[in-house]
Amino acid sequence: MQEKKVDVAIIGSGTAGLYALGKVKPSGKSFVLINGGELGTTCARVGCMPSKALIQAAHDYSRRKVLGRYGVEGHDGMEIDANETMEYVQDMRDTFVDRVQSNSTDHMSDEVLMTGFAKFVEPNLLDVEGNLVRADKIIIATGSRPVMPEAWKKYGDRIITTEELFELEELPRSMAVIGLGTIGLEVGQSMSRLGVDVTGFDLLDNIGGIEDPEAASTALSILRKDFPIHLGHGAEISHDDGHKLQVTAADQSVAVEMVLASLGRVPNVENLALENSGLELDDSGIPLYDKHTMQCGSSHIFIAGDVNGETPLLHEAGDEGRIAGSNAVSDQITSYKRKPHIAINFCDPNICHVGKRWSELDLDQTAVGEVKLAPVGRALIMGKNMGVIRVYADKESGKLQGATLVCANGENLAHLLAWCIQQELTVGDLVQMPFYHPVIEEALQAALNDLYEKVETKNPGPIAELAPLA
Amino acid sequence: MQEKKVDVAIIGSGTAGLYALGKVKPSGKSFVLINGGELGTTCARVGCMPSKALIQAAHDYSRRKVLGRYGVEGHDGMEIDANETMEYVQDMRDTFVDRVQSNSTDHMSDEVLMTGFAKFVEPNLLDVEGNLVRADKIIIATGSRPVMPEAWKKYGDRIITTEELFELEELPRSMAVIGLGTIGLEVGQSMSRLGVDVTGFDLLDNIGGIEDPEAASTALSILRKDFPIHLGHGAEISHDDGHKLQVTAADQSVAVEMVLASLGRVPNVENLALENSGLELDDSGIPLYDKHTMQCGSSHIFIAGDVNGETPLLHEAGDEGRIAGSNAVSDQITSYKRKPHIAINFCDPNICHVGKRWSELDLDQTAVGEVKLAPVGRALIMGKNMGVIRVYADKESGKLQGATLVCANGENLAHLLAWCIQQELTVGDLVQMPFYHPVIEEALQAALNDLYEKVETKNPGPIAELAPLA
Repeated sequence: MQEKKVDVAIIGSGTAGLYALGKVKPSGKSFVLINGGELGTTCARVGCMPSKALIQAAHDYSRRKVLGRYGVEGHDGMEIDANETMEYVQDMRDTFVDRVQSNSTDHMSDEVLMTGFAKFVEPNLLDVEGNLVRADKIIIATGSRPVMPEAWKKYGDRIITTEELFELEELPRSMAVIGLGTIGLEVGQSMSRLGVDVTGFDLLDNIGGIEDPEAASTALSILRKDFPIHLGHGAEISHDDGHKLQVTAADQSVAVEMVLASLGRVPNVENLALENSGLELDDSGIPLYDKHTMQCGSSHIFIAGDVNGETPLLHEAGDEGRIAGSNAVSDQITSYKRKPHIAINFCDPNICHVGKRWSELDLDQTAVGEVKLAPVGRALIMGKNMGVIRVYADKESGKLQGATLVCANGENLAHLLAWCIQQELTVGDLVQMPFYHPVIEEALQAALNDLYEKVETKNPGPIAELAPLA
Repeated sequence: MQEKKVDVAIIGSGTAGLYALGKVKPSGKSFVLINGGELGTTCARVGCMPSKALIQAAHDYSRRKVLGRYGVEGHDGMEIDANETMEYVQDMRDTFVDRVQSNSTDHMSDEVLMTGFAKFVEPNLLDVEGNLVRADKIIIATGSRPVMPEAWKKYGDRIITTEELFELEELPRSMAVIGLGTIGLEVGQSMSRLGVDVTGFDLLDNIGGIEDPEAASTALSILRKDFPIHLGHGAEISHDDGHKLQVTAADQSVAVEMVLASLGRVPNVENLALENSGLELDDSGIPLYDKHTMQCGSSHIFIAGDVNGETPLLHEAGDEGRIAGSNAVSDQITSYKRKPHIAINFCDPNICHVGKRWSELDLDQTAVGEVKLAPVGRALIMGKNMGVIRVYADKESGKLQGATLVCANGENLAHLLAWCIQQELTVGDLVQMPFYHPVIEEALQAALNDLYEKVETKNPGPIAELAPLA
């Protein structure tokens, strides 16, 4: 068999692979991008983008409920054909996928874009469905896929994941959502708002991965206004007498036309024959790597994006791809500072995590500021006055550590806070920032003022909110 | 006549006065709060709050137009009774005013809350409609009022300002909006969306106070989709034959039931008899003062809020009140750093100014980054893909100077940028911030990336977006 020889082989043409390519291509090194399965990123095909289109449609439709108070007649006579909504979502999805491909793989020759699944034969040798590629450097960017328990596969197209969700031409009348992380909540709430009879289940006692107990209970009580949620028991599925699936968790049971399994994502590593890569693997079979260099051990192999199982988020995959690509074409390995963590659940209200999570905090050393959204100010005007903002700082230094937001425009506030954490600002610095009026940022301001009272490091001068001129 | 003696007299119980009170009260000094006219702040009565309620109602109603694409039937059969909308806005307004008063003046005795208009008799002596107050320190916080040309007053209740707007029980079928600053655009667009036949006029060639030519033309073409706008000529008003007012500017003329005069605001200084205050006044009759101390000259008198004619914005009035109040009760005068400028026009899309305005920039030394919002990403999903983001930095140092935003969620992006300007960050710092996906912040990221290319100071390390670990 003939071997193709390249400087860099990138396995996977999703977000991480494409960002890596963005660093490899201009270096002048020879390369090959190897892609098995469908082209187009998880984000554009089945992730961030189509889910946001679905959420926006459901949100816009649900806002009809506020129209009555303004004197609008006929708002309660509207009806939605949710199958048309799905068609709209699919059109949007196709637009996003086209755009990703036309920006990346559409104009690549067969020389540099190989189709097929790659396996390691030796540390530097890959077998791509019969074609051999020898590469000085290899970047693994094979992404992840939704978890689907083996025992549930027998229910065929009655049980779906996000891989199938955005292909549905007809929505079911009833749906169980099993697993209430980001996807489960976003899809569950949207489907419910589009008229599907949704029931949610999770093995855990909380939703959306919220560890902060105050934020968790607030989010739960708000989301329960959209659909019933059963927590703390694993869900089991069986056929019922008719054409439905029976989903049961402890003493809760519901018959549904369809089940969405939203149990998280697993890295795509099993088919890479990593045992031939020479890499040391962790218990899940994922190569050990350094998140500041993306290098696996001291090897010539790098790993970037969802496949490393760390944070399956587009912007992190982008950074990891950049780091892996840049280090793969450099003579020396550079370590990069990683950015503060942001996770945004785009349900209504948004659920966001910034910086350290509750379980990562030393609670003895942490001050917690809080504001409960109340019917005041801009939140009242927006008709979105439910939620809570919790902000965490080091008690002694006042340095901002993180936040959990269950709040309208949480996605925007999360950026504000993450940028401040990246600058290592204190809550004293934050209370001196300008806050306009009337804006949702003022709710954050109230939480920060509360936090400021609880930290030991105070601002100089008689007015905490204003810095004396030097 | 008996004199009441106090340490501090605050003239005006609006936002600036109340924030000043917040610093004076806990000091233990004796004080009096003097209020002429209605209680309740401009913000709550006739400003930020009721205008936001009106904008939200108009926005929610206008979103019916996106529902068709999702497969919603009946969205075009809705009708709005805009008089009911106004009733809703008035209810909200009353809630805001009640809240301000119950937090501030409701529980104050006649001892400390004097009703009446104050005039200077001597630098330390005020006459409050016949009652004399002698005060060691005086804070002038009398606010502002909308401009109404003398010649137009004869049209009575057919020509209104924001003082009357939120009192209307019945909306006119047609309205001319004369003056297209923040109020003119916010109200003009909202009224148009509620079904009023609106025509806009401005003497200037641009709208919303936008000086940046690119942003100005983008904003104009977007706002013109809501209502016709005639620029560059002063509007004249006459009675027409019937019951309407004829508004004419150059060769444009329109007959309307009502005119909104939104020509800006003037400080309330004429009735203070400032000639007896001993203060030096500027050409507009406003005392000269230091914006870092709010002190007038080296006197015992301070001036805070709209009355000084600087920035009629609640959060600035709040800061000025705090500074004036704090300095009025201190033995020594402290200078405070003022925050970066933010101005938000809440029309759709938002029009925002942050930091230095176009005319304040040294264009030879300034790099300009730009992104035009296009039908991509989150903006496409939101159905809000019109606008432009313009960001300014010092060409050599890369330090962020300011921005003009015509953009969905501009209000949120404005905070991000203002906070970065307060930290004196460079565009190199900004491109290293975390940007989630898919969010409107990514549009800002594109503008920042463009700007980064144009500044001379680059980030160290091979990846601009990531900082090498120290």
